[in-house]
Amino acid sequence: VRSDLNHWIQEIRKGEARPVARALTEIENRGPRSRTLLRSLFPYSGKALRLGVTGAPGVGKSTLISQITANLRRQDCKVAIVGVDPTSPYSGGSILGDRVRMQSHHGDPGVFVRSMATRGVLGGLAPTTADVVTVLEAAGYDAVLIETVGVGQAEIEIMKWVSQIVLVLTPGMGDDVQMMKAGVMEIADVFLINKSDQDGASQLESQLRSLLALLPEGAPWPSIVRTVATTGEGVDQLMESLSTRPGLLNRLVGGWKERLASMVQQEVVEHIQRCIDDARFEKMAHEIVEGRQNPYELVEAVVAEVKNAKS
Amino acid sequence: VRSDLNHWIQEIRKGEARPVARALTEIENRGPRSRTLLRSLFPYSGKALRLGVTGAPGVGKSTLISQITANLRRQDCKVAIVGVDPTSPYSGGSILGDRVRMQSHHGDPGVFVRSMATRGVLGGLAPTTADVVTVLEAAGYDAVLIETVGVGQAEIEIMKWVSQIVLVLTPGMGDDVQMMKAGVMEIADVFLINKSDQDGASQLESQLRSLLALLPEGAPWPSIVRTVATTGEGVDQLMESLSTRPGLLNRLVGGWKERLASMVQQEVVEHIQRCIDDARFEKMAHEIVEGRQNPYELVEAVVAEVKNAKS
Repeated sequence: VRSDLNHWIQEIRKGEARPVARALTEIENRGPRSRTLLRSLFPYSGKALRLGVTGAPGVGKSTLISQITANLRRQDCKVAIVGVDPTSPYSGGSILGDRVRMQSHHGDPGVFVRSMATRGVLGGLAPTTADVVTVLEAAGYDAVLIETVGVGQAEIEIMKWVSQIVLVLTPGMGDDVQMMKAGVMEIADVFLINKSDQDGASQLESQLRSLLALLPEGAPWPSIVRTVATTGEGVDQLMESLSTRPGLLNRLVGGWKERLASMVQQEVVEHIQRCIDDARFEKMAHEIVEGRQNPYELVEAVVAEVKNAKS
Repeated sequence: VRSDLNHWIQEIRKGEARPVARALTEIENRGPRSRTLLRSLFPYSGKALRLGVTGAPGVGKSTLISQITANLRRQDCKVAIVGVDPTSPYSGGSILGDRVRMQSHHGDPGVFVRSMATRGVLGGLAPTTADVVTVLEAAGYDAVLIETVGVGQAEIEIMKWVSQIVLVLTPGMGDDVQMMKAGVMEIADVFLINKSDQDGASQLESQLRSLLALLPEGAPWPSIVRTVATTGEGVDQLMESLSTRPGLLNRLVGGWKERLASMVQQEVVEHIQRCIDDARFEKMAHEIVEGRQNPYELVEAVVAEVKNAKS
């Protein structure tokens, strides 16, 4: 079994698509081998460009990601694309996957596509995204593009695991820009005005500039870039504008701090479940209802037992 | 300090309103003395009629509860009323409290009113309801009336802690009755048609009877009772229809089984927080980002440390 696992890890390290896909499924399901996989792969992670692309539906994120992918492929970078939809209970495999595959990367072994949604991922989308990035980086992808829909709290959580965040906007969104939450303004590294050949692009840009003037002094100043994703116009400028962000270290440290605490909790909860099986809890519940046990006393005895238990 | 606590417990046991209210606040906040209070009070709990009253807004739940309270007061029962609103982020103290107090129980020391909402209650409404019931029973209330708004999953969770569930409906709700979730149909002990002097009461009753015919054979058969809460008509019949339900034991055992598991988890999480302070997690997160620590290895060391730690 151990040598099977080693073999699997070797295949992942070579970037073979099917073993990588199997590893991601194992991790999404919190399968029995996910921990060993992650522990073995982590030392090879941390080196990719992690690019987050977010924005409302219809702004052209997928087309943009296809153009970014083409750009990176011309530089001989291997690209992994992860679509995350916190609003959908369904795994968006067909949606994002099909769109991107149709757009010219189908059959390119240097491009890997994966989608995740709330259902199908145990343990939360943001933590799972962290683990998925670990695997993809260890598999040798030079860039991991993470697409999320919308700019809510779930997306901000997910974006803790990227090194660059591109917020995609389109002309005519002036009012929406006014309403953007400070949290989103402050995490974006690039404000991208897509469909910039449409009316209102300049107006949106000046609205963005006045909003950015409100950022606290000393805060990293995001770039504003115009693109027309359907033609590829402006994508080179976007790629040039991507530079390491001053606040990145703090973001990643904050992300790992939370993640580590939740990993410890998860481990302990699983340990409790191994120590005290369902039948034991059922028996104790009967005794409580019959008045033969005090639950508030019992809980201390159970915690002591859990702490002393091996494994 | 210990004798202060003993004094407090004695006052609660005597049913003095202010010490009881203070205890409920301590429990809602998961304050430092909540565990000791609950452990000391639990042996005196479990003896009250716990009546859950639920239904959509506007069906007359509060008026009905006021009538039930008057009925129980005539039998010299002490009554505690707990309003729980899972849909409101605000503590509904003023809403339920004022309504009920206005309705003739104001100043009656045998009636205690408390409201809870999502905000203001740490650790979840359903578990907190269980603890609140423990305190109120130990304080000598002969009946605890729990009012919830609506019939969603949160209400079903809360209703695990009651011995009788009254689902309040009104004429003209026929369509809504058709759409009622099986989960709600199956937990109700009494289907109460309030405002039964209005048109459509008989139609609602026959709709209910045909729905109940679909219940699995052998399932406890709920009563159907008609009331006009504003006049008190039918409330005596309601009180007569309240008898111990065959499935009650299973419900309470199921509730305590879940509650016990979550109490153990909560204890362990608090233990982790005492062992590994924020600064330690921050330091570890830095080491992970700098590539000097593997988080998936670190988590095992931390779990081992937590298990070996005293307290």
